[in-house]
Amino acid sequence: MNVGERLAALRAIMKSRHISAYLIPNADPHLSEYLADYWRIMPWLTGFTGSAGHVVVTQDFAGVWTDSRYFLQAEQELAGSEVQLMKLRVPHTPEFIAWLGDHVEAGQKVGVDARLLSASRAKQLEGALAKKEIKFADVGDLSEKIWQDRPEISERSIFLHQDQFAGQSREEKFEAIRASMQEAGVTHHFLSSLDEIAWILNFRGSDVDFNPVAIAFLMIGLKEASLFIDAAKVPDEVAKALGSCVSLHPYENALPQLKKLRANHSLYLDPARTNYLMYQKIPAKVKKVEGLNLSIPLKARKNPIEMDHIRATMVKDGVAMVRFLYWLQQEVPKGKLTEYTIGEKLETFRHEEEHFVGPSFGTIAGYQGNGAIVHYSAQEETAAQLLPEGILLLDSGGQYLDGTTDITRTVALGTPTADQKRDFTLVLKGHIALASAIFPTGTKGYQLEGLARRYLWKYGLNYGHGTGHGVGFFLNVHEGPQTFGSGATASKHTAFEVGMLTSNEPGVYHQGKYGIRIENLVLCVPHDNTEFGHFLTFETVTLCPIDHSLIDKSMLSPDEIQWVNSYHQKVYQKLAPKLPPTERSWLAEQTGAL
Amino acid sequence: MNVGERLAALRAIMKSRHISAYLIPNADPHLSEYLADYWRIMPWLTGFTGSAGHVVVTQDFAGVWTDSRYFLQAEQELAGSEVQLMKLRVPHTPEFIAWLGDHVEAGQKVGVDARLLSASRAKQLEGALAKKEIKFADVGDLSEKIWQDRPEISERSIFLHQDQFAGQSREEKFEAIRASMQEAGVTHHFLSSLDEIAWILNFRGSDVDFNPVAIAFLMIGLKEASLFIDAAKVPDEVAKALGSCVSLHPYENALPQLKKLRANHSLYLDPARTNYLMYQKIPAKVKKVEGLNLSIPLKARKNPIEMDHIRATMVKDGVAMVRFLYWLQQEVPKGKLTEYTIGEKLETFRHEEEHFVGPSFGTIAGYQGNGAIVHYSAQEETAAQLLPEGILLLDSGGQYLDGTTDITRTVALGTPTADQKRDFTLVLKGHIALASAIFPTGTKGYQLEGLARRYLWKYGLNYGHGTGHGVGFFLNVHEGPQTFGSGATASKHTAFEVGMLTSNEPGVYHQGKYGIRIENLVLCVPHDNTEFGHFLTFETVTLCPIDHSLIDKSMLSPDEIQWVNSYHQKVYQKLAPKLPPTERSWLAEQTGAL
Repeated sequence: MNVGERLAALRAIMKSRHISAYLIPNADPHLSEYLADYWRIMPWLTGFTGSAGHVVVTQDFAGVWTDSRYFLQAEQELAGSEVQLMKLRVPHTPEFIAWLGDHVEAGQKVGVDARLLSASRAKQLEGALAKKEIKFADVGDLSEKIWQDRPEISERSIFLHQDQFAGQSREEKFEAIRASMQEAGVTHHFLSSLDEIAWILNFRGSDVDFNPVAIAFLMIGLKEASLFIDAAKVPDEVAKALGSCVSLHPYENALPQLKKLRANHSLYLDPARTNYLMYQKIPAKVKKVEGLNLSIPLKARKNPIEMDHIRATMVKDGVAMVRFLYWLQQEVPKGKLTEYTIGEKLETFRHEEEHFVGPSFGTIAGYQGNGAIVHYSAQEETAAQLLPEGILLLDSGGQYLDGTTDITRTVALGTPTADQKRDFTLVLKGHIALASAIFPTGTKGYQLEGLARRYLWKYGLNYGHGTGHGVGFFLNVHEGPQTFGSGATASKHTAFEVGMLTSNEPGVYHQGKYGIRIENLVLCVPHDNTEFGHFLTFETVTLCPIDHSLIDKSMLSPDEIQWVNSYHQKVYQKLAPKLPPTERSWLAEQTGAL
Repeated sequence: MNVGERLAALRAIMKSRHISAYLIPNADPHLSEYLADYWRIMPWLTGFTGSAGHVVVTQDFAGVWTDSRYFLQAEQELAGSEVQLMKLRVPHTPEFIAWLGDHVEAGQKVGVDARLLSASRAKQLEGALAKKEIKFADVGDLSEKIWQDRPEISERSIFLHQDQFAGQSREEKFEAIRASMQEAGVTHHFLSSLDEIAWILNFRGSDVDFNPVAIAFLMIGLKEASLFIDAAKVPDEVAKALGSCVSLHPYENALPQLKKLRANHSLYLDPARTNYLMYQKIPAKVKKVEGLNLSIPLKARKNPIEMDHIRATMVKDGVAMVRFLYWLQQEVPKGKLTEYTIGEKLETFRHEEEHFVGPSFGTIAGYQGNGAIVHYSAQEETAAQLLPEGILLLDSGGQYLDGTTDITRTVALGTPTADQKRDFTLVLKGHIALASAIFPTGTKGYQLEGLARRYLWKYGLNYGHGTGHGVGFFLNVHEGPQTFGSGATASKHTAFEVGMLTSNEPGVYHQGKYGIRIENLVLCVPHDNTEFGHFLTFETVTLCPIDHSLIDKSMLSPDEIQWVNSYHQKVYQKLAPKLPPTERSWLAEQTGAL
């Protein structure tokens, strides 16, 4: 079946069930960002493989709403099908809601699988449709009957994440969450987010590519807790270890247990992280307290043991990166590399490092114009060949038992042009401004990220993505609640706190020509106490040289030159002892003073 | 009667009416920032004269909640009375709501004059109290029976603001508002904000100190409009001019007209700018559409004629400031000046300029430690004497028929210390960063204001106020919707647009020692169009030298030195032709290259 045939089959079902418009969020019942293959309905139906999107199908329309990171990719992937790219004007906003209100007639029905919408988004949609007298109905997963070779749901085993890595026992984590529950005045806390559940219980899984999580729900009471997970996935020794904190129940029993809550219970839940089907089934007599999952701020503040592991893991990741970059420099002139093969090679270097588990996301290796496609994913058959000219953007990361990495380097494969050097240097200036920011407690990401953009703005340049995201600890590479975002939605109201790990990744993208991004991870650390309050700063933990040949030194201030030199000194000091002599000499060159 | 006697009288009334807690917002029925004397209940009752505050009185407690701008002032003014200063942790938030919830028992009553609370704030309060089963009641103005020498409500006449100044006729303004009404799908728009009403109708008044507005309500229909205002205040020729757009009605008839709306009407109103008494009286069958008053964005974007007037008015205001600063330098060594007398003298210089009407707010002249009291107001009897040493902070502004000004200069009266120069230079660096920012359309104040703070933050310094506010055109010196605020509340979600006039005023304050602030007004103007979008920038319109003797040139980058020099060149070019020879030579010195 091709896209046209799939749409035709879907429309036949819609017609028979009187569904005027069918909404398919790119989501799973846990509202995960990265989806198990079973839930990748959007790519199966439309061909668009981006990580963020909402599909709407009517009898005479099919469209996918996504944000500017994916415009170029979506245009390519949707070309030739009837599916239209609906460009979000404001990223992460539900612009499809207004479209549905305008295009569905009063009295008609909009259907969705209510498991794939958060309660807060569903209520917003339902309210907007009600104003236009349009019905909103949970019609389940209509793809079920059409999708013949649908992947199965994973049954891979979970494994324990040892306390020596986690730095905090699951008992201590339950204690902290229960303290927050008591403050919120609730008897229960229900969690659907897979990374929260893995973090709280110090286990990891392999159900989803790149994210070491397992499909489960968790209900925490004040004295007892229940983990809802397929028993086949829990080896005996894991069950035994978890047994001190939780009882194990079949995955399917999560919903029945929610329904069993009584009037004397009160339930804390996160309406943005609980699916609407479950949310609606909570008995009306149960008092609900809504807010960010209580484990999110606890997980975001890495503990001192995690922070030490992160610093050590960055040495390993830096060694792999340097070995790779040296190898790249030797091999490019031979003319045999492609964007795809270098991604594979980079993974082999990471594999040689202790505790490496796998990549933390799909490597983005974008050569020349492909570097301007922000979430480009090179395919084996169509990947561009690397030549000793132009520039390459490489964004990759690793999952290690002792930390998660995420790094972007942009390297010149030949002699860069003046424009490329100017652009790279402007991005670098922004990167440095953010990396070296000192700020009072209470400061939020949107107050700082202008520092990273201002140099580009002076030249009429900009980038369409946020400047940084939180990063997990051997967990999801995108983790809340803090971001360097330019918007100011609720989730971005989080102030920076000591222990938060965040990416610093300004860039600039010239469509069809080249893309530039410089990404390091930064840990929030204390700086000073004065009569004006407590001040914080960032410690850059990623260790890898920044390509000197792309820097126009004349555009840097003395302070900025000093930052580059001392960063490179640190990179050399930390990595050199772990490198073979040839790579070590190469690194010495790469990290010499500007 | 003193504060204690007033509180006792109030408590007697509260007791007889079973009111456990009485809330007094520092507000009027129009929710104005600056109040007519009649409505200054808070200062009368407590002695605290700040512009922002909420008073709560119970039988055994009296407190006033205000923000950090007023902490020092409130401590001084409340000393010796039982009224407690309740320091707001987050400015402009209703922290008194939580206090009421914690201190009033279930079943008891919190009373307020519902005219003095916005509908949105009242609903928030009512909801929070309901959760604790505390009653919320409109009990009217309890001060009425106690306040014997209460000032009368002003009956001063309104006057027309000529189109040659306004740049847009009232007919054109009604047309633009009605276009917005039609977009919002409403038949009526009700306005309570005095500056909005004056702006729409191109009149001005004198009912409130500093703000050239008159007490009125306005109801706009799609074809007709009604102005509710005391007839005695409207001279015949004004009534005639307004007659083409509005019919005139007694002030008291606004509420009855709201009640007369029918089911086929739909009403647009701003719940943050409509008092709760009126809001509640709107018939339930009338469809309400809520949002920012529709005139606010129109008024904020100054039209080209207003922009030209603003530039011309800044020359006049700059001439007055330079004449004053020259005079100050001559007079300080004689030892006869005080903070109070210099404010009077400055006003006399402004009075000599064409179209000057009066000050746009109470002059803040803070010498040495008084400069650290952000909203300090020198009193004739207690004002500090100026000596040829230390530094003076002077924040003042004028109302002209052709524009409103607001300027702060910090000047050294002797030889400044190294610390003072360092602080001043850090503030200047922030001021310059904001003044010279280039940014894409869609950028909001909170994304930019970090640029003004980062240099201070590096030294563990900060300031407790926003970095800038919108400014009216011969209207309120504080005007929305844009700000350079660090928070991200709804009103700060406004992106900068061409024509917006905003203050740029970073500072730093050392309690008991000195305060520093540098404030210019900036107009938002177009900068460039590139493949990355439209870019905007600011034009600094305030014209007055920045004290060289306080600048540590070694801390400035070449670009910053260039900014100061070219700003001073512009100041000299614009002001010199209007100055007497002695002042002209003095200005030449003050604006020489760094």
